[in-house]
Amino acid sequence: MMKRSTLLPLLIALSAAPAAAQVREAPSAPAEIERTAAQLRDRALTDATAYDFVEGLTTEIGPRLAGTPAERRAAEWSAARLRRLGFDRVAIEDFPLAAWVRGAEEGTILGASPQRVELDALGGSSSTPLGGIEAEVVIFPSLEALAAAPDGSLRGKIAMVNRRMTRVQTGQGYGPVAAARSGGPGQAARAGAVAFIMRSAGTDSHRFPHTGATAYPDGRQPIPSAALSNPDADQIERLARRGPVRMRLVLNSTLQPASRSQNVVAEIRGRERPDEVVLLGCHLDSWDQGTGAIDDAAGCGIVTGAAKLIADLPRNPRRTIRVVLFGAEEVSQPGGQGLAGARFHAARADAPRIVIASESDFGAGRIYSMQLPAAAANTEFMRGLGRVILPTGALMDSTPARGGGPDIGPFVAAHGTPAATLQQDGTDYFDLHHTPDDTLDKIDPDALKQNVAVWAAFAWMAAESGVDFRAAPTPAPTR
Amino acid sequence: MMKRSTLLPLLIALSAAPAAAQVREAPSAPAEIERTAAQLRDRALTDATAYDFVEGLTTEIGPRLAGTPAERRAAEWSAARLRRLGFDRVAIEDFPLAAWVRGAEEGTILGASPQRVELDALGGSSSTPLGGIEAEVVIFPSLEALAAAPDGSLRGKIAMVNRRMTRVQTGQGYGPVAAARSGGPGQAARAGAVAFIMRSAGTDSHRFPHTGATAYPDGRQPIPSAALSNPDADQIERLARRGPVRMRLVLNSTLQPASRSQNVVAEIRGRERPDEVVLLGCHLDSWDQGTGAIDDAAGCGIVTGAAKLIADLPRNPRRTIRVVLFGAEEVSQPGGQGLAGARFHAARADAPRIVIASESDFGAGRIYSMQLPAAAANTEFMRGLGRVILPTGALMDSTPARGGGPDIGPFVAAHGTPAATLQQDGTDYFDLHHTPDDTLDKIDPDALKQNVAVWAAFAWMAAESGVDFRAAPTPAPTR
Repeated sequence: MMKRSTLLPLLIALSAAPAAAQVREAPSAPAEIERTAAQLRDRALTDATAYDFVEGLTTEIGPRLAGTPAERRAAEWSAARLRRLGFDRVAIEDFPLAAWVRGAEEGTILGASPQRVELDALGGSSSTPLGGIEAEVVIFPSLEALAAAPDGSLRGKIAMVNRRMTRVQTGQGYGPVAAARSGGPGQAARAGAVAFIMRSAGTDSHRFPHTGATAYPDGRQPIPSAALSNPDADQIERLARRGPVRMRLVLNSTLQPASRSQNVVAEIRGRERPDEVVLLGCHLDSWDQGTGAIDDAAGCGIVTGAAKLIADLPRNPRRTIRVVLFGAEEVSQPGGQGLAGARFHAARADAPRIVIASESDFGAGRIYSMQLPAAAANTEFMRGLGRVILPTGALMDSTPARGGGPDIGPFVAAHGTPAATLQQDGTDYFDLHHTPDDTLDKIDPDALKQNVAVWAAFAWMAAESGVDFRAAPTPAPTR
Repeated sequence: MMKRSTLLPLLIALSAAPAAAQVREAPSAPAEIERTAAQLRDRALTDATAYDFVEGLTTEIGPRLAGTPAERRAAEWSAARLRRLGFDRVAIEDFPLAAWVRGAEEGTILGASPQRVELDALGGSSSTPLGGIEAEVVIFPSLEALAAAPDGSLRGKIAMVNRRMTRVQTGQGYGPVAAARSGGPGQAARAGAVAFIMRSAGTDSHRFPHTGATAYPDGRQPIPSAALSNPDADQIERLARRGPVRMRLVLNSTLQPASRSQNVVAEIRGRERPDEVVLLGCHLDSWDQGTGAIDDAAGCGIVTGAAKLIADLPRNPRRTIRVVLFGAEEVSQPGGQGLAGARFHAARADAPRIVIASESDFGAGRIYSMQLPAAAANTEFMRGLGRVILPTGALMDSTPARGGGPDIGPFVAAHGTPAATLQQDGTDYFDLHHTPDDTLDKIDPDALKQNVAVWAAFAWMAAESGVDFRAAPTPAPTR
């Protein structure tokens, strides 16, 4: 079932011999750790494990919405793949989840210019009646403007937030529009609206709505909520300049409170300090309309591919490397908290022993910089890792990492887990994010390999060195 | 309702004075005709008529499938707009049409990798039962390979043609894949298949199926027929490498034989030879899922904008300029013939008096070359027009025109009507063609204006000059 380059086993065989010779000498000196890291980096650039993982998961499973049978199949598929790749221990962690499942959806402009628009319910949206609702649209330029609408002032209306997302390499244009997605439905309900619609949190101009989770204290939106594709938001904006816009919305969905989700956990057991864990994360669930290639099969392929190269070394690193494919990242749960799989794993008894954690969850764009916890600033570890990743085009940034990815948040919150940031080029990421268009063809195999190279170097050096990422930062030398 | 640049009336006022001075002198000498053509060209580059037309039609009407109330609204909207623009005579020509209307559609891969795929019925497709059909997919690399399948060899199967379209500036990559769309369903039925699916006739990699008309002697496909988005064709191809692919197809549609369609006809009446007609065409109908911006609101905006500039001159040209917004271009009619509006207009008693005809039906990409009928080769007319359009980046090509666009075909066939070709850059056209993504945001206003400039120069010179485009070609001078 697995597709492989026929050239690949040969390349690995050729490069494995010198690497083996070097890592067999123990204990590892910093220079030797760095040499092995460089070899892992170079192997990553010709290794197909990550792409094969992404290809297999997106093809054989496809969409894998949290809490559905498809997510369960994805977990079983991944566990089987990880076992075959030679990890020491592979397990599926099962936990309860309230699953939200999309039903029929339809948006229609009524009146003198009758036409269909492309929209998708936001995660956690409540249902309209089967036949839908009809109401006039009131457009707000931002969440702040909607929040300023007096209580009851939108009674019987559809509230629409029309804020455009800015394209930025770091992806930081997402914050304000994601905030509108999270907070919009609640503000619309407060002001009396019967439904909430929004311009998609996305940078493209295709007829794809960008769905996404919403945050509401009760877990489920009190009113039906949907994202419009950006061209459809433009269309409503143009029509609204001509006169009142009235719409019919059909947004049907079900909430299935007694569902289950899963994390998949695979370890390379540390040879000296097995209880000290270097955690490499990604999330296995995806939204339901694309096949979740960039979000987040890519991340799972990257961390799996990186760990696999380390598993192939002649001996295990000193610390344990744990790959966690989190379930149920893309959810809004009763109580308002998402990240259900990460929260479950962070509650494990051994979670406080995680020495460093990071998640790959930003597609397959190249890594252009990386940040480590403050404790690693000005250390030989940081300089050595910087030297290893530089030939891939990634720079070491001595600014302390500010977060390790969405699923690392619960670990930081619960245990103060040190986090690393591997910053990817996200210029185009939000063209595809949370749309039906998130499919395998959007993955650049070379960029994927570059990610694996940086992750492999980072994971190896963090696991083989004794660096305490929780320590107080080393003072900068005075000049 | 009409949005206009506030600068525009001023610009026209400033430039109108010298033009008026020149065209008032009669009879027009070639140099004077050319001077006016150059003025029209320059005005076109700052004129918003075409864009306003496209914006209005795609916004206020949106999708306008042939034979539906939306197409009728589009005709009424256009007629009102053309009257307001100052044409001498505007009429709606009504004719019968068998309308094909899309219903519920769903494609699902069954078995071990269950997942939805994005597909849309092809125009004229017959319906599956409401609950759909289930069958195994047999993939052919081309129409030719499918045509070689023995009679009855596909009994109970879904036939799939998986031919990829080549991206070419001229659009000529479309021919082979459009042939698969036209001929595939009939060949599949002949071989016993229960349905026909195909990789979209499109150059993009987005999850948009490209629909389109089919040709079958009885007008309606004998089996359900659909286009898959290109990423979904890839997905089926990958799954088929792993084992047999079984699918469920729901393709519901209705054929409404007693429908009506319309052409909209607007004239600038010739001041000396009103019966000699320069026909500028486009088509008003669109597929039902986008708003038909590039196909073909753009073309209607271009020819309307060009004719409007001529209508604004102090006196009418010698010959009549007739703008025809054809209805029902995108159809497959009982008897196998499409282009219903063009065939209706070509059957008018005055159709043989059309002296030259061309259609704008290739989006808003810039015109890079133009060809005239053989009779105009090596004439001062051709050289003069070539000089006028050169500053816009369009070259005169002395190769005789080989066709004037789809809707001009019936005129050429019935009357030997001379045709001109205004060749646009179509590199990206088939990324959008016949998809939900064909919307206003895809129109480049500057490229649209460049088209108007070339069309205005051509239409003016053809209508003001006495060139007989039916004459035998002028022999090339011996060197």
